[in-house]
Amino acid sequence: MIPEYFSQRRSFRNFSSEEISDEKLFSILENSMRAPTCGNMQLYTIIVTRDKEKKEQLNKLHYNQPAASSSPVIVTVCADFKRFSRWCELRDAVPGYDNFFSFLNALTDAVIICQQIATIAEMEGLGTCYLGTVTYNAKEISELLKLPELVIPVASIAIGNIQKNEPQVERLPLEAIVGMEKYPDFSDEEIISLYKNKEDFPLNEKFVEENGGKNLAQIFTDIRYPKMVNEELSKKFFDLLKEKKFINK
Amino acid sequence: MIPEYFSQRRSFRNFSSEEISDEKLFSILENSMRAPTCGNMQLYTIIVTRDKEKKEQLNKLHYNQPAASSSPVIVTVCADFKRFSRWCELRDAVPGYDNFFSFLNALTDAVIICQQIATIAEMEGLGTCYLGTVTYNAKEISELLKLPELVIPVASIAIGNIQKNEPQVERLPLEAIVGMEKYPDFSDEEIISLYKNKEDFPLNEKFVEENGGKNLAQIFTDIRYPKMVNEELSKKFFDLLKEKKFINK
Repeated sequence: MIPEYFSQRRSFRNFSSEEISDEKLFSILENSMRAPTCGNMQLYTIIVTRDKEKKEQLNKLHYNQPAASSSPVIVTVCADFKRFSRWCELRDAVPGYDNFFSFLNALTDAVIICQQIATIAEMEGLGTCYLGTVTYNAKEISELLKLPELVIPVASIAIGNIQKNEPQVERLPLEAIVGMEKYPDFSDEEIISLYKNKEDFPLNEKFVEENGGKNLAQIFTDIRYPKMVNEELSKKFFDLLKEKKFINK
Repeated sequence: MIPEYFSQRRSFRNFSSEEISDEKLFSILENSMRAPTCGNMQLYTIIVTRDKEKKEQLNKLHYNQPAASSSPVIVTVCADFKRFSRWCELRDAVPGYDNFFSFLNALTDAVIICQQIATIAEMEGLGTCYLGTVTYNAKEISELLKLPELVIPVASIAIGNIQKNEPQVERLPLEAIVGMEKYPDFSDEEIISLYKNKEDFPLNEKFVEENGGKNLAQIFTDIRYPKMVNEELSKKFFDLLKEKKFINK
């Protein structure tokens, strides 16, 4: 029997002011360490932000979104090849991890353990919310958290005690996201049909109403994730990969 | 109480020949869809490989490693901005997701749901193993699975019924991977001390013995993840990002 938690899960963005005890936090992190990791290299570092002043600075880099501001703790998971590389050097081994492929491995490790932390925290009754903005301001967050070369923040979650219930939002039907043996190449009519439930979902209809004149897809392309911003952020993240030595040429 | 599963988890690489029923597989996938996703865009597609012939071709692209070859099913999770972009076009919205930042968002979504699938499958008593080789041969796997532009395989797990128990391997102590408020900048002596348990772990000592002349760190740098291979794979993956239109210039 799959625990009911999985089908019921949702993100929470409003937390009470209650702190999370060291005992609870460290027990979540300790348990998360058994998450799968590339070659057992553990290519990540988890930075915990709880100090009031640091937290306010970090909240700001997440645009003071409610999930960040109202949470007692933010966990920033970094792709990290520095610790491992230094160990290699100290053992007369020549590390070769200052490249894009190694960044991909470390990024994957970091996201896996971040999701493990989220799952454990949520099964403990806490609420979590990913802060996608971690990659928007990865450069500034790196400075705030004093991250050295070969370390880049890639996944972040706010954790806290749930203040109010939030509705579960819609998902596409399973057939939209699963392909048997090969990529499911949908016709235009099929795409429209697969997204119908999304367009008809009351909360999304409300968004559309509030943004008079745009349909749901246009709210994504013109307001939430516009091309120009994506291109700027691509350049910014690329520059950070170079600065942190994950791209050398 | 955190379920004991989390502290006990490990990967499995030897599976029995028993199939996994459609009912079980789809119930795992259906439950995984509640994993967090960027802006609820669900930027992933999950490809299921079970067909004997396709499976053999895919196993080969994973170097016929036992976890792949012995498993009845491999799940390949792709970063996918195609389905979403096509929906946008069909709704007179102009998608702007042919860039590196959008790939990062889709990659993160894909890894999150892959880890959700792994957790649910394991809590159901199945074994899983990540196939890191998915990124080594992402180009060839893309061809096998007929992936279009804006779709790249980034995370993959073999799933099966556990044939024999496997030991839990070592992890670094928690203090090695957690920083309070900022990056934990360890001295060389501290690094040596944090990696001591890893070097002394019996299975690792056995590796070192079998590779007479090299220490554990050198086994990583010279044999398992050497610089030259990482650099070749960086170029290969970069070329794929261009081919799939996630990098345009």
